[in-house]
Amino acid sequence: MLETIRKPTLILDEGRMIRNIERMAAKARRSGVLFKPHFKTHQSAAIGEVFRERGVRAITVSSLDMAAYFAARQWEDITVAFPVNLRQIEEINCLAERVTLQLLVESREAVEFLQKNLSRPVQVWIKIDTGSRRTGIPAAESGAVIDLAKTIRSCRHLSFRGLLSHAGHSYQARGGVQVEAVYRDTVSKLRALKGALEAEGIHPVLISHGDTPTCSVVEDLSEVDEIRPGNFVFYDLTQLAIGSCAEEDLAVAVACPVVALHGEREELVLYGGAVHLSKEFLTRPDGQKMYGGVARPAQGWGPLLESSYVSSLSQEHGIVRAGKDLLERVRVGDLLMVLPVHSCLTVDLLREFLSLEADSTPQGQGLPCPP
Amino acid sequence: MLETIRKPTLILDEGRMIRNIERMAAKARRSGVLFKPHFKTHQSAAIGEVFRERGVRAITVSSLDMAAYFAARQWEDITVAFPVNLRQIEEINCLAERVTLQLLVESREAVEFLQKNLSRPVQVWIKIDTGSRRTGIPAAESGAVIDLAKTIRSCRHLSFRGLLSHAGHSYQARGGVQVEAVYRDTVSKLRALKGALEAEGIHPVLISHGDTPTCSVVEDLSEVDEIRPGNFVFYDLTQLAIGSCAEEDLAVAVACPVVALHGEREELVLYGGAVHLSKEFLTRPDGQKMYGGVARPAQGWGPLLESSYVSSLSQEHGIVRAGKDLLERVRVGDLLMVLPVHSCLTVDLLREFLSLEADSTPQGQGLPCPP
Repeated sequence: MLETIRKPTLILDEGRMIRNIERMAAKARRSGVLFKPHFKTHQSAAIGEVFRERGVRAITVSSLDMAAYFAARQWEDITVAFPVNLRQIEEINCLAERVTLQLLVESREAVEFLQKNLSRPVQVWIKIDTGSRRTGIPAAESGAVIDLAKTIRSCRHLSFRGLLSHAGHSYQARGGVQVEAVYRDTVSKLRALKGALEAEGIHPVLISHGDTPTCSVVEDLSEVDEIRPGNFVFYDLTQLAIGSCAEEDLAVAVACPVVALHGEREELVLYGGAVHLSKEFLTRPDGQKMYGGVARPAQGWGPLLESSYVSSLSQEHGIVRAGKDLLERVRVGDLLMVLPVHSCLTVDLLREFLSLEADSTPQGQGLPCPP
Repeated sequence: MLETIRKPTLILDEGRMIRNIERMAAKARRSGVLFKPHFKTHQSAAIGEVFRERGVRAITVSSLDMAAYFAARQWEDITVAFPVNLRQIEEINCLAERVTLQLLVESREAVEFLQKNLSRPVQVWIKIDTGSRRTGIPAAESGAVIDLAKTIRSCRHLSFRGLLSHAGHSYQARGGVQVEAVYRDTVSKLRALKGALEAEGIHPVLISHGDTPTCSVVEDLSEVDEIRPGNFVFYDLTQLAIGSCAEEDLAVAVACPVVALHGEREELVLYGGAVHLSKEFLTRPDGQKMYGGVARPAQGWGPLLESSYVSSLSQEHGIVRAGKDLLERVRVGDLLMVLPVHSCLTVDLLREFLSLEADSTPQGQGLPCPP
């Protein structure tokens, strides 16, 4: 199947993906929590069906466009895990007619705007910042959270669901102990807030918890009500570095043609650049930037090569620091497999999957939302 | 016009773009060199027409897909400035039937493959590495260049054009003096190689020179035969840092809705993330990463704000370090304008332009090549 590849192509190992999905679904069941996977990583109707076949009914997305794409494919319970964009009120009203729409708010301004402009009921979560400092009301500000919850409950079209956080600081953790510590801290902050709300007579207050590292590492998630991991469907080198997954869980790679060899400086050039892989990088122990791992094609791809990696990217060029073992065996016109640093961004760029089991998933089914 | 924007949208200042194009075209004319602009930056049929109206007939692209896109729009002389991808020989033969196709080679393997598999004539350039160390035969290896030129000249379907380089190390330069030094060094290496080839009876040997910094900064380009700058059509913060352009030459920005304010830590959150801007960054004097500049909307956009910039990106979130002056004036639901670090990547991600002169360039004309 790889022989037919002519240009940078996203390769999906469906067996690994299904194993990743089933493992997370089983953990959610064991923990007694709702599994509400984030679909921003794959953005694919076909992969959505793999989740549906395993009992998933409620999903998470990161934009209203993505919500519309999945709403058109019979997904009826959709959480947009992004601070509500007031400029898309028309899209919100349109979606709220067709699906159970769940939005994130974190300011009185946004709630008041929704109150004035919503024509249909929506459910809302208060976004809490438990330490990632990206966005949300800081968990320490319980007064602000209580005020906002009361405002929400006074609004005709708004129904208050609870507290939602994305523990994005788990991406700074390395190893299970650190990841688990992020989870414990996040959950204790959210449960304290829930207690403060209940003491004000506000209940029920659900807790929605995100992020692939904690959901992968922590075995018992029963202290929250729902989980929203996304990246776990494919994982990537970042998750491998954190310790969220093993190498054999990596479910996507980019097949890239070799276009030039520079043996004298132990480099080779791939057709596969920033417009295919994204410029996300990890820093190696030697301080060098790594824009992707490298493996040889096999049934899919072989093990990550230790001494070879993508060391820089232009728009279309990928430069590989190549070990002697690789340079001796590769020729111009061959393919190499690049394991992405951040699969969400690589998939967003390439947009189509070629499955290793090409009979079962036709190429091109993974088309994302309309632009 | 900006009032209608609901989500991250690429805004084109056509007046600035036309001025950038006309300035470069005039310099090429004064220098007596062929202007063969690189179309990878805009990837737009409509913008291609702006060049055509100013006399451009030969263009540069970075992939065979892009070549096919422009070939379908009556561009008849197309240079693919990327080491030839042997796996796309079918596309090469197909294109070579319709246009004057110019390819880059840097190895005997590639030349021999073309000789065996080409069904139509193509022109080839030898890619020379004059110091960027991305790809190409190092300029010091004149023997290898002479051998390859002789091999090319012995091939039935190959016609040897000359030496092509992209002085990508100009991106490390800061200020006109450093950029000009890169140009002088590159040209002297290419002219020495040309002399060595001519001494072997190989002529004519043309010199094709790329990169926006040197083509922008150097006034007299008459020592080369053709220039292939691309980024100059829009410029960006990287070019501004190098000194290739002035702030008033920046011709694209991304309009982004404000979705959250965090005044206490002098930050705000934009709907506008890595999937809109790309993760390209510049390092500020204080060591912080900057993923974009920030300006307020105006007729287009106002001056770059000194104390505000995009400090981190998630898939859809852009975090802005915001000066007090900005925080006092901005509300959730407002728009801010983000000036890209690397316009080629931002344009590749957003794919559609909204022109400030919406009457003259309908939204959506800037569609790139088929996937």
